Amino acid sequence: MTGIFLSLEGGEGVGKSTQLRRLAGALEARGIDVLVTREPGGSDGAEAIRSLLMQGDVARWSPHAETLLFAAARADHVERTIRPALGTGRWVLCDRYVDSTRAYQGAQGIDDAAILALHGFGAKGLLPDRTLLLDLPVADGTVRAIGRDAGVADRFAARGSNFHDAVRTTFHGIAAAEPERVRVIDATGTPETVTDRLIAALADLLP
Amino acid sequence: MTGIFLSLEGGEGVGKSTQLRRLAGALEARGIDVLVTREPGGSDGAEAIRSLLMQGDVARWSPHAETLLFAAARADHVERTIRPALGTGRWVLCDRYVDSTRAYQGAQGIDDAAILALHGFGAKGLLPDRTLLLDLPVADGTVRAIGRDAGVADRFAARGSNFHDAVRTTFHGIAAAEPERVRVIDATGTPETVTDRLIAALADLLP
Repeated sequence: MTGIFLSLEGGEGVGKSTQLRRLAGALEARGIDVLVTREPGGSDGAEAIRSLLMQGDVARWSPHAETLLFAAARADHVERTIRPALGTGRWVLCDRYVDSTRAYQGAQGIDDAAILALHGFGAKGLLPDRTLLLDLPVADGTVRAIGRDAGVADRFAARGSNFHDAVRTTFHGIAAAEPERVRVIDATGTPETVTDRLIAALADLLP
Repeated sequence: MTGIFLSLEGGEGVGKSTQLRRLAGALEARGIDVLVTREPGGSDGAEAIRSLLMQGDVARWSPHAETLLFAAARADHVERTIRPALGTGRWVLCDRYVDSTRAYQGAQGIDDAAILALHGFGAKGLLPDRTLLLDLPVADGTVRAIGRDAGVADRFAARGSNFHDAVRTTFHGIAAAEPERVRVIDATGTPETVTDRLIAALADLLP
């Protein structure tokens, strides 16, 4: 018995945190045992690496060092949290995964093939059974508002709209290349409407 | 004007710290401007990663996650400390470098080609102009004594003699494959004798 691995992806301000909670609740209401986790983080070691990655100045790490740190955190998370949970038949719902590295580090010039090679080394290339990409147009005001609302923007939210445009473009490119795994979900409308779209995109996997 | 990059390598208890100080002093006495640094560490980011790597239980990190963390630390160290120093003509004397990853993570089953690929990604494959490998037979008692003398053994010194034998074997293999870069230095005898051997192995590089 192996569980189902889901990842939820998307840029800043698309309502990812809200939908993560709502989707977990909707799956549990169907009797599914769900482990909700996040990246970077999700295991003791990976959470320690998360602190290094998310805090400090935008230029704290070079894009190459940063990409290696994300790969290290993911390796630990997969080995210590995700694979054991899947092995006992639980569903794993992960807030961001390797596609975020491809989008955010890719937007800083890191080659996609190199990111996938690191993922092959660290996490034996484990990919989600389904990736749900919450999609909204990038608005300058939205990005600024997030930083303000959070009190302190993390190193990624703090970047400008050109960066977030590049992130969105890469996410769309991944979805176009892997349409079976990655589904683009329109994130406009009420939270209820968006959750319904997420569930619909999982219809073939639900018990 | 580009400086010279030297690394000092060796297993536990070979007198590396003593020889690092003595060699730096001998170079400075010849009028060379030497930057002494260490791995993991040597830059703000890499020192933060060092804390994650050296502390905690031996099993804190899987060999793959650990290898990625060393590569991340090295990428930061090379970009922020080593390349800038070499660029101004300084000599850099580094306490451990990528050969230690090849020996210590290699001894845990990590493929040498994978380690070199990570090094190519993170640090653009920068290798020392000369690597001085301090060599002593591994003795059980020596390994145990180091841990005791240090008060608390780090995650690597704490391993058994089979591990340290494998480390030594890998170091010798690297030296055999790259005899121009890597010189094996007999670490028996007085500190003065060993320093003389180190200086002799740099004769072609000295001004």
